[in-house]
Amino acid sequence: MQVARFRTSDAITFGIVDKDPDSGAAELVELVADPMVAGYETTGRRFPFSEVTLLSPVIPRSKVVGVGKNYADHREEMRELTGGDAPADNPVLFLKPNTSVIGPNDPIVLPEQSERVEFEGELAVVIGAVAKAVPASRALEVVYGFTCANDVTARDLQIADKQWTRAKSFDTFCPIGPVIETDLDLAAATLTTAVNGEERQRAAVSDMLHGVAELVAYASAAFTLLPGDVILTGTPAGVGVLTAGDRVTVAISGIGELSNPVAAAPAAR
Amino acid sequence: MQVARFRTSDAITFGIVDKDPDSGAAELVELVADPMVAGYETTGRRFPFSEVTLLSPVIPRSKVVGVGKNYADHREEMRELTGGDAPADNPVLFLKPNTSVIGPNDPIVLPEQSERVEFEGELAVVIGAVAKAVPASRALEVVYGFTCANDVTARDLQIADKQWTRAKSFDTFCPIGPVIETDLDLAAATLTTAVNGEERQRAAVSDMLHGVAELVAYASAAFTLLPGDVILTGTPAGVGVLTAGDRVTVAISGIGELSNPVAAAPAAR
Repeated sequence: MQVARFRTSDAITFGIVDKDPDSGAAELVELVADPMVAGYETTGRRFPFSEVTLLSPVIPRSKVVGVGKNYADHREEMRELTGGDAPADNPVLFLKPNTSVIGPNDPIVLPEQSERVEFEGELAVVIGAVAKAVPASRALEVVYGFTCANDVTARDLQIADKQWTRAKSFDTFCPIGPVIETDLDLAAATLTTAVNGEERQRAAVSDMLHGVAELVAYASAAFTLLPGDVILTGTPAGVGVLTAGDRVTVAISGIGELSNPVAAAPAAR
Repeated sequence: MQVARFRTSDAITFGIVDKDPDSGAAELVELVADPMVAGYETTGRRFPFSEVTLLSPVIPRSKVVGVGKNYADHREEMRELTGGDAPADNPVLFLKPNTSVIGPNDPIVLPEQSERVEFEGELAVVIGAVAKAVPASRALEVVYGFTCANDVTARDLQIADKQWTRAKSFDTFCPIGPVIETDLDLAAATLTTAVNGEERQRAAVSDMLHGVAELVAYASAAFTLLPGDVILTGTPAGVGVLTAGDRVTVAISGIGELSNPVAAAPAAR
């Protein structure tokens, strides 16, 4: 099932993706409330995608957890940039604030502090239950679903600060969407990122060094995960610079496409 | 004025500290709602401190922002531990999740992943307004008040991970309280931290390398600060190890004392 959060002419609401009974076209069936907490009761209203604005399908009330260097090829391309490597046996965690989250088609705004903002296409895991020290064998039970994310990073500030937080936390630096797929086949999913239609990243999600269950277990061993928290699972090789006027699209087979334009800093417009 | 959040026998509520008209003893005047959003209308109920449990005076809905190496003497003691120094001209920012926040007298729980958990007594700034790219000259206008905090850190994991996030994000690793002082004299305030009654840190808050206004400006230039967000302003020299059974107390003149017991990990009890 695919869950969307969207703005209609009169409300911000949730829905599931269904086919129009007549035309067969995908459309949204409105739900009474957030299905993560309230289930799948429908209001009876249906909306074609053309009549709504998709929003980030989730706004974390606690945290977006990032994972560094979780694909071998990206770890290699980052080695010379950031000086040294992650410990091979542990994921590297960081946090992005919920104030960085935007939805599909919202602009990624380049901050004036950086001269090198880069995209990082990633699979995002949406947590659906309170989770503390969950073993990997049961970790998928606390996962609500999966979506696409872009872990936008000011690479120059990441290198200068050494700590990654500021470089990854600017407003608009966490596009999420377009929908949450609750039944993704992780073994079959392929991630691609394109800039202006040109493919720049391609990886099987199964190529992650630390898989989804392991990441959920590792993160929940450090801090309690809450419903609506998001784990970004790391990016494969091919990261690159964004400039104003670009459009960057993260796509995962079985989920959909998360596409965002890139805008200059307000002061530079 | 001093604002508290506390649990009574029948509710979790907010109050301001006042003197009992007869005895002169400090007590709590209950407010209708969170004064940060609803002002200072009172319910008419008064509580002696002995009848309530103080809670963290704020639960950030977005972020706790930490600042690294903001006192020269602590920067020096950390130099050999973490390898290299922070850039001299910029604060180093990190985030702690709201799931790490606890209140006065709540136990700091030592995680089994670490063998070296340390206290860091700090002045905490509570943000009271939406703040984006606020200049330092106006930054104090978005500050609601000040309280004490303990930026508890698993020092061994901080060193091993290089990124500080996991080491500083464990549940219970962000004690905050006891009250928010809305009118602190920053030029006169002194910070001390004691373990089992023995003083381990002492500094004038005015010794910070980057002052409160500068930190608010710098953080808000990276990400929008929301009401209830907290900035931890860094710790002076003297950080040290906590062991189960200890009691650690961060005190700031003009605010009060934040005291927490230290407990072993559940698995080790």
